[in-house]
Amino acid sequence: MSVLDAPRGLHNVVVTSTSIGDVRGDEGFYHYRQYSAIDIAESRTFEDAWFLMVEGRLPNLSERAEFSRTVAPLRVLSAQVREAVASVAATGPEQPLLALRTVLSGMPGAVPLYESTEADKRATALRLCAVTPTVLAAVHRLRSGQEPIEPRQDLTTAQNWLFMISGDVPSDAHARAVDRYLTATIDHGFNASTFTARVVASTGSDIASAVCAAIGAFAGPLHGGAPDRALDGLDQIADLADADSWARTKITAGERIMGFGHPVYRTEDPRSVMLRETAQQLGGELIDKAAQVEKVIAAALADLKPDRKLYANVEYYAGVLMELCGIPRSMFTPTFACSRIVGWCANIVEQSADSKIIRPIARYDGPEAPQALPAL
Amino acid sequence: MSVLDAPRGLHNVVVTSTSIGDVRGDEGFYHYRQYSAIDIAESRTFEDAWFLMVEGRLPNLSERAEFSRTVAPLRVLSAQVREAVASVAATGPEQPLLALRTVLSGMPGAVPLYESTEADKRATALRLCAVTPTVLAAVHRLRSGQEPIEPRQDLTTAQNWLFMISGDVPSDAHARAVDRYLTATIDHGFNASTFTARVVASTGSDIASAVCAAIGAFAGPLHGGAPDRALDGLDQIADLADADSWARTKITAGERIMGFGHPVYRTEDPRSVMLRETAQQLGGELIDKAAQVEKVIAAALADLKPDRKLYANVEYYAGVLMELCGIPRSMFTPTFACSRIVGWCANIVEQSADSKIIRPIARYDGPEAPQALPAL
Repeated sequence: MSVLDAPRGLHNVVVTSTSIGDVRGDEGFYHYRQYSAIDIAESRTFEDAWFLMVEGRLPNLSERAEFSRTVAPLRVLSAQVREAVASVAATGPEQPLLALRTVLSGMPGAVPLYESTEADKRATALRLCAVTPTVLAAVHRLRSGQEPIEPRQDLTTAQNWLFMISGDVPSDAHARAVDRYLTATIDHGFNASTFTARVVASTGSDIASAVCAAIGAFAGPLHGGAPDRALDGLDQIADLADADSWARTKITAGERIMGFGHPVYRTEDPRSVMLRETAQQLGGELIDKAAQVEKVIAAALADLKPDRKLYANVEYYAGVLMELCGIPRSMFTPTFACSRIVGWCANIVEQSADSKIIRPIARYDGPEAPQALPAL
Repeated sequence: MSVLDAPRGLHNVVVTSTSIGDVRGDEGFYHYRQYSAIDIAESRTFEDAWFLMVEGRLPNLSERAEFSRTVAPLRVLSAQVREAVASVAATGPEQPLLALRTVLSGMPGAVPLYESTEADKRATALRLCAVTPTVLAAVHRLRSGQEPIEPRQDLTTAQNWLFMISGDVPSDAHARAVDRYLTATIDHGFNASTFTARVVASTGSDIASAVCAAIGAFAGPLHGGAPDRALDGLDQIADLADADSWARTKITAGERIMGFGHPVYRTEDPRSVMLRETAQQLGGELIDKAAQVEKVIAAALADLKPDRKLYANVEYYAGVLMELCGIPRSMFTPTFACSRIVGWCANIVEQSADSKIIRPIARYDGPEAPQALPAL
């Protein structure tokens, strides 16, 4: 048996092929299918990108309208899911993502991918993606002592998201900003939650099982999807004049500055650049401060860690953008989940076409076996 | 960036080291820590093996008693979990494993591994493992129109399992047989659910998230843990005289015979051998038939697939043993989950000592990017 010793954490080990997209870290570029994700975020909509993930091509106008008509009713919670949401809001896990997982896990009718038609897979994936914002917003409302708000059929995903959280139909500027954020974060290479989803899919299990597994990975502190942490850091800097010493103290102490650095990008994070511009269009003190602090922190990092090439990542301006759009901080990562589930589902469906289970091996490094059992 | 192209499915790729155990496929041998798992199943108890997984050594008599005292109260469901069980039994996923996942997912108080002490990890893992049989049995009882049965503090895991399913304290022979089965199936190398659990743990997420992910993989048809399927096959053979033609028809048609063959063993599966002996001690028509049919199928496989070395695997006699002990067929895989969760938790805790996230990469093979966006 010929065995291959992989680098720790399977770092830079190619596990599969994909036509969903890629990240080119050295170029500061990432794409969905054959299109720049940033181009799509700037010129199209979240629903168009979602369609692209599912169909492999961008919709034309009539396909866009048709897709919206398909998705709209899927956002509405059934009576049974509403009950599950109420129960999980009352007694379930504190973290909104884990509450979401509990609700998705509890839906009946799971069919193994191994026994599903392509049409069934697509329908299940659409349903899970469409219902996710509604579940998350309803849990949030209930926990804030408010009634959940029904999604409106005439609103987009981004509009509905802000509407279901706040109760107010958002301004076009806010809806557009959130739409850009959602569009830009659907997929981003083979991150840990995406890989988890694919491992589960490779066993032939059902889509919700793969999504539930991905949510568990997504909730991990090392996964890196927590825009609230970056904003918490910004809060600690009361005055711009303090930013440099704040950053240098942290860097010298070996602490990570949340919102800076990325495992793949060696340039500015293209999502960060786009979100900064979007937030600057919204305007206000917070984005002015954030943009100035970014320069100070980036300079301190370049000075003290010259080899590392650490720039603001997607978390940094995502937090600013969401705060400007009135999203409560506890809902920052849930907002991220609303888009990323679309990427997970595309990866799950793609993986399900491969009949080979993903199953590496481990090397035993304990005491030699077998040894005689000790007497009781 | 130097990239390593791994074999499909990460086959024979070493992803990590472990001191939990190993499978030596060519020798027909597997072990927990430094002890033969079969030795433990034959000479010790499930609780001893559980202790071994947690502590890295087998307990002495007083440690055994102490461990039982620790675990006993953890089996009891809180009022809140009882409510979740009732709800999931009424409206949740049909598959018992997915119902279990929903209940475990919904427990509050999840703390990221990344922020947990070793003592906290151990306590959480014990609690999840202890509560799992109670949850599964309660869901089963409710769905059979019966009241759930409380675990008894004076019974072992195996005794309680049979008691909570049927309402009767089992005979020593039945309890001993189930104890052996549970003990022998705690861990078995780097199977897909164990690997899934470790990937999620590597993100620093909480133990329940890693367990929930593992359950999703475990439910996959390609994972291979479904003792009921093997017994369903045995049912199709009405008479021993039909076994040979039944097997040859299936083999010639390219169908898999459930309960035969294993990705790692090239010999008899040591679990199958031990479970056959255990079932033979219980006696009866079913085991006599199963042992005879095994020989016929093995001979047909050796004849038609001489290069494959296909023998009865753990599923084959596990199904027979559980049927003889009165476990309903729908509870075969859940029985397996009751033991395997102990192995998952040991792997999760071990993985959490490694700060490196498990995150391979994929190779993009779609159309060249970026291309200009098409007009709407």
